[in-house]
Amino acid sequence: MVDKKYVYSFKEGSKDMKEILGGKGANLSEMTNIGMPVPPGFTISTEACDNFYKDGKRLNEVVKNQISVKLKELETDMNKRFGDSNDPLLVSVRSGAAVSMPGMMDTVLNLGLNDESVQGLIQKTGNERFVYDSYRRFIQMFGDVVMNVKHELFEEILQRVKDGKGVKVDTELEIEDLKRIVSMYKEVIQAKTGRLFPNNVHEQLEMAINAVFSSWNNNRAIVYRRMNNIHGLIGTAVNVQSMVYGNMGNDSGTGVCFTRNPSTGENKFYGEFLMNAQGEDVVAGIRTPKKIEDLGEIMPEVYNQLLKIRNDLELHYKDMQDVEFTIQQGRLFILQTRNGKRTAHAAVRNAVEMVNESLITKEEAIVRVEADSLDQLLHKQLDEVHKKDSKVVARGLPASPGAAVGKVVFNAEDAKVLAGKGEKCILVRIETSPEDIEGMDAADGILTARGGMTSHAAVVARGMGKCCVAGCSDLSINENAKSFDASGMQFREGDIISLDGSSGEVFVGELRLVSPTLSGDFETLMQWADNLRKLKVRTNADTPKDAKMAISFGAEGIGLCRTEHMFFEESRIKAVREMILSDNVEGRKNALNKILPMQRGDFRMLFEVMDGRPVTIRFLDPPLHEFLPREEREIEELSRDMGVSVEKIKSKIEELHEFNPMLGHRGCRLAVTYPEIAEMQSRAVFEACCECIGNGKNIVPEVMIPLVGNTKEFEHQKEIVDRVAKEVKEEKGINFEYKVGTMIEVPRGAVTADKIANSAEFFSFGTNDLTQMGCGFSRDDSGKFLKEYVDLGIFKRDPFQALDQEGIGELMKIAVSKGKSVRKDLKLGICGEHGGEPSSIEFCHDIGLDYVSCSPFRVPIARLAAAQASVKAKKKKEEKAYKEIVKNSVEEIKGKYGSSISMEDLEKELSSKISPDVLRRVRG
Amino acid sequence: MVDKKYVYSFKEGSKDMKEILGGKGANLSEMTNIGMPVPPGFTISTEACDNFYKDGKRLNEVVKNQISVKLKELETDMNKRFGDSNDPLLVSVRSGAAVSMPGMMDTVLNLGLNDESVQGLIQKTGNERFVYDSYRRFIQMFGDVVMNVKHELFEEILQRVKDGKGVKVDTELEIEDLKRIVSMYKEVIQAKTGRLFPNNVHEQLEMAINAVFSSWNNNRAIVYRRMNNIHGLIGTAVNVQSMVYGNMGNDSGTGVCFTRNPSTGENKFYGEFLMNAQGEDVVAGIRTPKKIEDLGEIMPEVYNQLLKIRNDLELHYKDMQDVEFTIQQGRLFILQTRNGKRTAHAAVRNAVEMVNESLITKEEAIVRVEADSLDQLLHKQLDEVHKKDSKVVARGLPASPGAAVGKVVFNAEDAKVLAGKGEKCILVRIETSPEDIEGMDAADGILTARGGMTSHAAVVARGMGKCCVAGCSDLSINENAKSFDASGMQFREGDIISLDGSSGEVFVGELRLVSPTLSGDFETLMQWADNLRKLKVRTNADTPKDAKMAISFGAEGIGLCRTEHMFFEESRIKAVREMILSDNVEGRKNALNKILPMQRGDFRMLFEVMDGRPVTIRFLDPPLHEFLPREEREIEELSRDMGVSVEKIKSKIEELHEFNPMLGHRGCRLAVTYPEIAEMQSRAVFEACCECIGNGKNIVPEVMIPLVGNTKEFEHQKEIVDRVAKEVKEEKGINFEYKVGTMIEVPRGAVTADKIANSAEFFSFGTNDLTQMGCGFSRDDSGKFLKEYVDLGIFKRDPFQALDQEGIGELMKIAVSKGKSVRKDLKLGICGEHGGEPSSIEFCHDIGLDYVSCSPFRVPIARLAAAQASVKAKKKKEEKAYKEIVKNSVEEIKGKYGSSISMEDLEKELSSKISPDVLRRVRG
Repeated sequence: MVDKKYVYSFKEGSKDMKEILGGKGANLSEMTNIGMPVPPGFTISTEACDNFYKDGKRLNEVVKNQISVKLKELETDMNKRFGDSNDPLLVSVRSGAAVSMPGMMDTVLNLGLNDESVQGLIQKTGNERFVYDSYRRFIQMFGDVVMNVKHELFEEILQRVKDGKGVKVDTELEIEDLKRIVSMYKEVIQAKTGRLFPNNVHEQLEMAINAVFSSWNNNRAIVYRRMNNIHGLIGTAVNVQSMVYGNMGNDSGTGVCFTRNPSTGENKFYGEFLMNAQGEDVVAGIRTPKKIEDLGEIMPEVYNQLLKIRNDLELHYKDMQDVEFTIQQGRLFILQTRNGKRTAHAAVRNAVEMVNESLITKEEAIVRVEADSLDQLLHKQLDEVHKKDSKVVARGLPASPGAAVGKVVFNAEDAKVLAGKGEKCILVRIETSPEDIEGMDAADGILTARGGMTSHAAVVARGMGKCCVAGCSDLSINENAKSFDASGMQFREGDIISLDGSSGEVFVGELRLVSPTLSGDFETLMQWADNLRKLKVRTNADTPKDAKMAISFGAEGIGLCRTEHMFFEESRIKAVREMILSDNVEGRKNALNKILPMQRGDFRMLFEVMDGRPVTIRFLDPPLHEFLPREEREIEELSRDMGVSVEKIKSKIEELHEFNPMLGHRGCRLAVTYPEIAEMQSRAVFEACCECIGNGKNIVPEVMIPLVGNTKEFEHQKEIVDRVAKEVKEEKGINFEYKVGTMIEVPRGAVTADKIANSAEFFSFGTNDLTQMGCGFSRDDSGKFLKEYVDLGIFKRDPFQALDQEGIGELMKIAVSKGKSVRKDLKLGICGEHGGEPSSIEFCHDIGLDYVSCSPFRVPIARLAAAQASVKAKKKKEEKAYKEIVKNSVEEIKGKYGSSISMEDLEKELSSKISPDVLRRVRG
Repeated sequence: MVDKKYVYSFKEGSKDMKEILGGKGANLSEMTNIGMPVPPGFTISTEACDNFYKDGKRLNEVVKNQISVKLKELETDMNKRFGDSNDPLLVSVRSGAAVSMPGMMDTVLNLGLNDESVQGLIQKTGNERFVYDSYRRFIQMFGDVVMNVKHELFEEILQRVKDGKGVKVDTELEIEDLKRIVSMYKEVIQAKTGRLFPNNVHEQLEMAINAVFSSWNNNRAIVYRRMNNIHGLIGTAVNVQSMVYGNMGNDSGTGVCFTRNPSTGENKFYGEFLMNAQGEDVVAGIRTPKKIEDLGEIMPEVYNQLLKIRNDLELHYKDMQDVEFTIQQGRLFILQTRNGKRTAHAAVRNAVEMVNESLITKEEAIVRVEADSLDQLLHKQLDEVHKKDSKVVARGLPASPGAAVGKVVFNAEDAKVLAGKGEKCILVRIETSPEDIEGMDAADGILTARGGMTSHAAVVARGMGKCCVAGCSDLSINENAKSFDASGMQFREGDIISLDGSSGEVFVGELRLVSPTLSGDFETLMQWADNLRKLKVRTNADTPKDAKMAISFGAEGIGLCRTEHMFFEESRIKAVREMILSDNVEGRKNALNKILPMQRGDFRMLFEVMDGRPVTIRFLDPPLHEFLPREEREIEELSRDMGVSVEKIKSKIEELHEFNPMLGHRGCRLAVTYPEIAEMQSRAVFEACCECIGNGKNIVPEVMIPLVGNTKEFEHQKEIVDRVAKEVKEEKGINFEYKVGTMIEVPRGAVTADKIANSAEFFSFGTNDLTQMGCGFSRDDSGKFLKEYVDLGIFKRDPFQALDQEGIGELMKIAVSKGKSVRKDLKLGICGEHGGEPSSIEFCHDIGLDYVSCSPFRVPIARLAAAQASVKAKKKKEEKAYKEIVKNSVEEIKGKYGSSISMEDLEKELSSKISPDVLRRVRG
């Protein structure tokens, strides 16, 4: 049997082989094959890395033998010999996984130098200083990366020699100094490791390859993969490439360039270079690099060659490229190309302009822009330069993006007072509660010490599009004393701080803010997205202000209006409390009658803003104890206001206390117990609807019953809604349409969705609660273990941030299929936090929902993500069809020539039938 | 079109028509058709009742016409005319639903009497006094039941007349007195209702029928149906039957008899009667009835006839019958027969003896005994007679059956002290917590003011087989003052009370206890059950004592050993707290090392008792804060004991506080965070296992990981268990087998069961938590609305008591099917509270579980219920097969004779092919 292939020369690969060759290796192959001046080399596959770990962190013989063969080929190719004392082959050994992990894994340059080959290289280059400098660098890098000797020890030796000579920079050292350094480096390696620095170049190579493979599982690489949600890779590849030198004199140099401006997106060559330098010098920042245009003056031919390469690469890759090059004695080499990282602004501009240049299709443009990155375009940001110069005093969770600068306040009341004076403030709380809503609205930013990404503060702030840093446990807050400590500093009321809600950082003092500007390109991209997407995008909004903003961002309706938010306003909370404290239906009805006109007004204004777009109104959801005061002072106040004894209020609070409020008396359970609440809310909705229809607006409200687990709960509530609708129609003499549906957020509701869909006209998945109940952990308590669960890979991502498709998604699939089995035209949506998260939106598209609903500021993200989901689904479908075609063709060929046909002949026949493009898609 | 048939004469029905004719009507028909002396009459169907409600509580014309027709037939049959002034037909009008609801609905006797027919009846009977007495009784009953005049008003009149005459009993009144009473009755009716008493007999009949139909939805009937879990009936039937009289002189009488003794089950005729009396006189208790044997002396012919009827009815119905009879002037009439209610003792004896008499099969015997009723046979009971004479001071939930008598104590410590002195005591707590376990064990009974049927007190008490009354909100307990108030009395420490855990009653003083005795019949029945059932029955037991008791009740293994119960013992809780208060792994390991030998000892003793039977050990489940003290005093004590500051303990308590502990850091989440806990527990299990194997016992422990929602959690834990097993095997040089499985109690676990079953060898459904998370309500908080949910019919029964088959059952079905899809031999069990509840056990059988596990005292119930489930499933299967046979025969006949064959001919052909038994089963 033939061994599996683990080592590929650059001539053998292609850009479609990233899984096996890693990104860098695949692109080196691709460039080699399209004739770019790439120094020859070979790639050891990620599968070899997988074996390396399976074999107990060592290279097996099969891989070693294949490396030897490829090394020989490389020697032949370069007409040099590894370790030769005449004209030695030197190589770089670099990592490269399928997904870019810049700087996380190890690299060794100049490998192949030893005491003999140094002489050969001197002979060949005639540049003894260059050779010893390279040798010194190689030993240092090898000692650090491969032999684990701390790099500081080498730095010290270098510094000591420089100090002894009284010189400042390396270039001032002489050859003899470098030779001394080389032998001192070898000594320190021997002293620290007990081993000699390996003089055998083959041993050097094997050790370096082992080191690179090992670095796949070093701590920083693991953390990087976790933080960037990189999963499912089997390891890194290793690229062994013949060395070229940018430091061989003034006709040599090295640089990095982007085919377009990665910051603005402008279609203009962009980059920098240094003459007579190696790559690390550009990064180190000791010498200031020059702009790429200047190369045109220094080496016009090379520059023109580079310009052509820029064009060729973009035409070939059809994306903006980030290219590393080296000029060795006037000859240009390309060492790497990859898709360039860019700002959201640049991504949008690139995508739109490349479509206009006919480089890519609109569908390709859509998937080019990371949906989440649009956040950068919509919110104010802290000035990046100013950030670099400022002190971070604490770090919390990036709970709601954007930035805020203002005076510290410690309660909602103070926030309102300060905002009333036109001052900017930041509300700092241990945690927020529904009573803080007005203060949160008044503040420019919110900072809390407790709570996660879906805590009250985070959810409300995102809804408001307001910057929030949550769960900032670095803070020690004393709300009574109105102060907090962080990083050893004390902050008092009125002190100015700055928040970065996109990074979770808290800064001392007033940082510069940069305002968002939406370009025409953004609008263009969004229009393309709207044409491509199937999912509708609605918003979660409770106020006309939020609704207006959401419409400006493209929302097509309201998917979730939380009516309880309307209950917390100061003028209303009294009536709500009066209702709660009533002992009988009459008392409750009296109190509800006070709320009715206010809530009707809320709905009317909301309907007017939405102007015919669908509005989904969720009935009262939170447990009643959330509306009662907690502090002694407030209880006394309430007692005076209501003429009810403090004892009675306390006993009511005690009575309403719940051990597990999340699993308590809330949602529709409230209105089953107190039907008068549902009656009032129905009346408010329908009377508001009549008022709008009277004014010529077309309104079809969608009443949504929360927390339904049992169809009989729903039927109980629907009966009330229908009855009140009939009453209002008769009273007002106005006819209107409406829908009644439910949230699917209780697991029992999901698995009995067929029963519920018999009477419910729509489902909206409340994935926050569905995640809590389905997984059995509350978002308030799971902080204690969820981070570790993600670290351990039990969940790929925090299921409150990105929908847990395997588990909660399964419940959703069950609900969709059961629901549709009894009602084909059942409307399906999602209104949990996941409705604004791209991977969750793709899942919603795939399982056939009709719309997603998210906070106003995430509407553009959702529009783009929905379009991306469409494009991806279309692609998957196409690929399935192509596979079918290829499979059929293979069958046909086998039918004609017999199944003993050789693979080669089969391939030939196949390529005569099917275009290479299709074949590549099926196999890539 | 022909109208639907709503009215059936007794000749037209049969006992299989209970749904339509009600139980009473169906049996009257059946008896008529087998030649019993039943007074003729007809039944108005339950479907007519349904229509009555649909038509706004009135009889429609179709039904009215059918009644007229049947009334005419009855007149012809009896050769009397309704309202006749010569020889009038009189009728009784009685309710009768498909399920017996004794005394809940209305009855009218002697209907058909008016001022004219009274004369006719006098003429016919020649007994004026009897006739006026009947008229008086009729008006009183009609006035009360049909015209809603309070019966006290009639009693007052009767008393006034008796007082005026200076007589004591009704029989002393003379004819003129009765006439006066009749006219005074009519006056009071007119005064109270503004209507005349109806003289028209047809009007009387219609009003009476309406009244009976209306009584279907009177309050007490609704409550009765709810309390007895009667659902799905469409209404009551009405039986109109010609009257016979037991009060027509000394050759007349009336009585009630049982074909066997309903109290002991003895196969001996049993009953009582009164001569010259109506049925109500027997019930009223004014005269003392005679034993049925005495009838043999008074009227030997009638008695012999009755004995024959007793035999015929038992042979016909194949069950013990409860028979009402009347003797009118020497002629015997049977007015009713139904299956007799009996004690659990009698039920068991009847069932076994009837099998021995070849009256029924073993399978029929099995389903005859209500599984839940076995509780009566296993626990001590309060003496029924003594109960009647004693004062009930409070009523709570019947949380754990049996009875207890003892001195009141208010904390666990006092209970232990008193029990130590050999005194019986009852632990009275607002609610219990895990710290009370030892006190609960020491006490004879437990009484709590808060908590439901699945509260801590209830669950633990049932596990211990100890009497418990929970959630007794009538009590006002002051634990500090050591007293409670109830019914206006104050009880202090040391006062004696008695509890009835089967009824929830609390009595003052010391009531007599009756000890349980298990008969040989019980053992026989249980053996039959064991032979018939497919489900294995295990027990939930944490101690050797419980395990021993469960084995004596027939348990075949332990399905749930809760290891945390072992952590609460005083000697261990310190080490547990030391573990919790440790800041690092080392500290925790040290503390766990102290627990290890104790836990190993626990397991060894448990294994020894179980002697080769399977033992499922669940790893630590509750959140850690449950192990920390709550009261200041205890915290200070702990601080001294551990040498840890009070502040640190308090801050730990604060840190561990959870908003929703049910959804918090518990179950396997603990051991994912602190793997050392799972390590210690694995080691304790396997070392105990080795010790037992060393002693020649064969032990295969089953390690159960709790609260798995994600297969990766399970894999994480299994890796630890497997690793420790390997270590212990090597250390001890002993080989052993074991299984690792999981609870399915998180909805996510249920819907991803296919993933989990890849590595789990068994599933045990934890339906307590699955209900909480699946329905989204905690058992601690749902008390606020769950009762109302059951009242409203949203849930048929409290889902914490009887498994919610539609919802939680659906999750179980999904888990079973997904689990089996990847592992055919997956072992499936249930260990939630539902494992001992008959309807839930039937469901478990139907979905293919292998075993149920329940508290020791419910093991016999589970064995019987499992057998019943088998029998029922077999019957369902047979019925399906029979239906198929009948369907095929019909097809065949139609094929032969063409499908235009008349129904009559089809029937004839069919009965020539298929036995009437089969036809009845298919159609019944």
